[in-house]
Amino acid sequence: MGSGENATQENKNLAYEIGKIVAKLGYIVLTGGRNCGVMEAAMKGAKDYNGTTVGIIPDDHTSRMSEFVDIPIITGMGSARNNINVLSSDLIIAIGTSPGTISEVALAIKANKKILIPDNSKETIELLKRYKKSYVSQFNPYDPMEIEKLIVKYT
Amino acid sequence: MGSGENATQENKNLAYEIGKIVAKLGYIVLTGGRNCGVMEAAMKGAKDYNGTTVGIIPDDHTSRMSEFVDIPIITGMGSARNNINVLSSDLIIAIGTSPGTISEVALAIKANKKILIPDNSKETIELLKRYKKSYVSQFNPYDPMEIEKLIVKYT
Amino acid sequence: MGSGENATQENKNLAYEIGKIVAKLGYIVLTGGRNCGVMEAAMKGAKDYNGTTVGIIPDDHTSRMSEFVDIPIITGMGSARNNINVLSSDLIIAIGTSPGTISEVALAIKANKKILIPDNSKETIELLKRYKKSYVSQFNPYDPMEIEKLIVKYT
Amino acid sequence: MGSGENATQENKNLAYEIGKIVAKLGYIVLTGGRNCGVMEAAMKGAKDYNGTTVGIIPDDHTSRMSEFVDIPIITGMGSARNNINVLSSDLIIAIGTSPGTISEVALAIKANKKILIPDNSKETIELLKRYKKSYVSQFNPYDPMEIEKLIVKYT
Repeated sequence: MGSGENATQENKNLAYEIGKIVAKLGYIVLTGGRNCGVMEAAMKGAKDYNGTTVGIIPDDHTSRMSEFVDIPIITGMGSARNNINVLSSDLIIAIGTSPGTISEVALAIKANKKILIPDNSKETIELLKRYKKSYVSQFNPYDPMEIEKLIVKYT
Repeated sequence: MGSGENATQENKNLAYEIGKIVAKLGYIVLTGGRNCGVMEAAMKGAKDYNGTTVGIIPDDHTSRMSEFVDIPIITGMGSARNNINVLSSDLIIAIGTSPGTISEVALAIKANKKILIPDNSKETIELLKRYKKSYVSQFNPYDPMEIEKLIVKYT
Repeated sequence: MGSGENATQENKNLAYEIGKIVAKLGYIVLTGGRNCGVMEAAMKGAKDYNGTTVGIIPDDHTSRMSEFVDIPIITGMGSARNNINVLSSDLIIAIGTSPGTISEVALAIKANKKILIPDNSKETIELLKRYKKSYVSQFNPYDPMEIEKLIVKYT
Repeated sequence: MGSGENATQENKNLAYEIGKIVAKLGYIVLTGGRNCGVMEAAMKGAKDYNGTTVGIIPDDHTSRMSEFVDIPIITGMGSARNNINVLSSDLIIAIGTSPGTISEVALAIKANKKILIPDNSKETIELLKRYKKSYVSQFNPYDPMEIEKLIVKYT
């Protein structure tokens, strides 16, 4: 999960790396499926490592869908689909912050899901600190080995 | 799509065969994902042919999920998820009739989706006859070759 | 519940009368909330009798909303909102047939809701006959007194 | 919007007062509809001032519904209904913080809705400060006249 149109290049680089790691570990990368930001970068990473990607599309059409979605789930329900993203995931990895991302981390806390914040995003880290201390990231966000270890640990 | 708990053995046999054909053709089998009826039989058919299955789960948990689901999408939204089943499918294949199935065929007509009724289910065939004549099935439901040809034609 | 753009004048006249009866009996008229067909006519009837109307809007905006909606519920989830219409109603009254209406009657049968078909709509009556015999209408659709008695009986 | 089971007595007192003010101003109080916390307190306030209340129920049944709901909307879609709460409101008033409340404030920011935080809840105020400075509350949360003025200003 992560920023869409407003993602920084740094957000997208990290998302790409994590998409690759998740795919390498044999997991599916599930995102909001749109053709921008963290969603697209993570799925591109997964596809470059021959992984499988699922996109939970907010629209009732595919015109804003990323080309890196293998399995499109067309919900036609806008941001209400954020809850499906959360419920369908074994581990939520949130990169960057946007209102949509924050809603997903909040819903993930509510659904008692495991959450990993691999960067230094203040807002989501504060949320986790308050409600779910144990999943707060305390690691170097740019060390793939460390991220891989954490994903393994949490899934 | 098709009956759940109330599916007949005939419904399930046909669903199994069609699951196999869809998998053989390289398509994904998407169902409501529960561990009964047409859903489970179609996914079992797909898995026996090494296909990929997606289950759009109505619950917010997996206790009623079929073991033949590869990719579970946990919606937690009950029968409102029927519309996601429909929007996410390229071709709707409906077997047997139940209120849930009829709602899906009706939503598929509304969403202007291609629909195939491979058996002699009066209710869904009547629906198609009235609203979308061209997709009414006029073929031997028990001839796999003929069903395969129709799936190819419609997708 | 009932046809939208494709409603006949007869559908709309009947919806208007029933909207009035429901309001007179002190019940709320809940519809899909759009500015056409059976939805709008039923709510206009209710408002002409000083009733209260709720519109469950499929869009995430109000540009297609009827002016006769008192309380708009903006779902932004398209036809998936049909299930909310059904779950939120004590008695489903379906007028005319359209794919959307049929999906709602099917979902209402699934949710074990009371259903009244006040006209001679073959498709929905067939559905009820098959799955829920007791609620099939066997009355003069154009006698307001008789409809009123049935609504009282079923709520 | 606000905390459910974990609401403090202070949260509930404030919610009650605001429910009264909203009703007095002639607006409808819309909440998540459950029988606890900020939701119930706000609706009780509205009813004590003869207002109208709408409850957007997450369940597909009414066993956890507040007795102060006039118009229950039964969604059966769990926390995905939070987006309906947001889209259906002209002004979001958030009291206290819980993961659900934070998800609603985040979705409200995304939907570009007006938001009022009448207490000193750090998490939601931080969210608004970052994404939507203009709606941050800078007023005495316990002065009903001031809250009333702000509600009038924002609606």
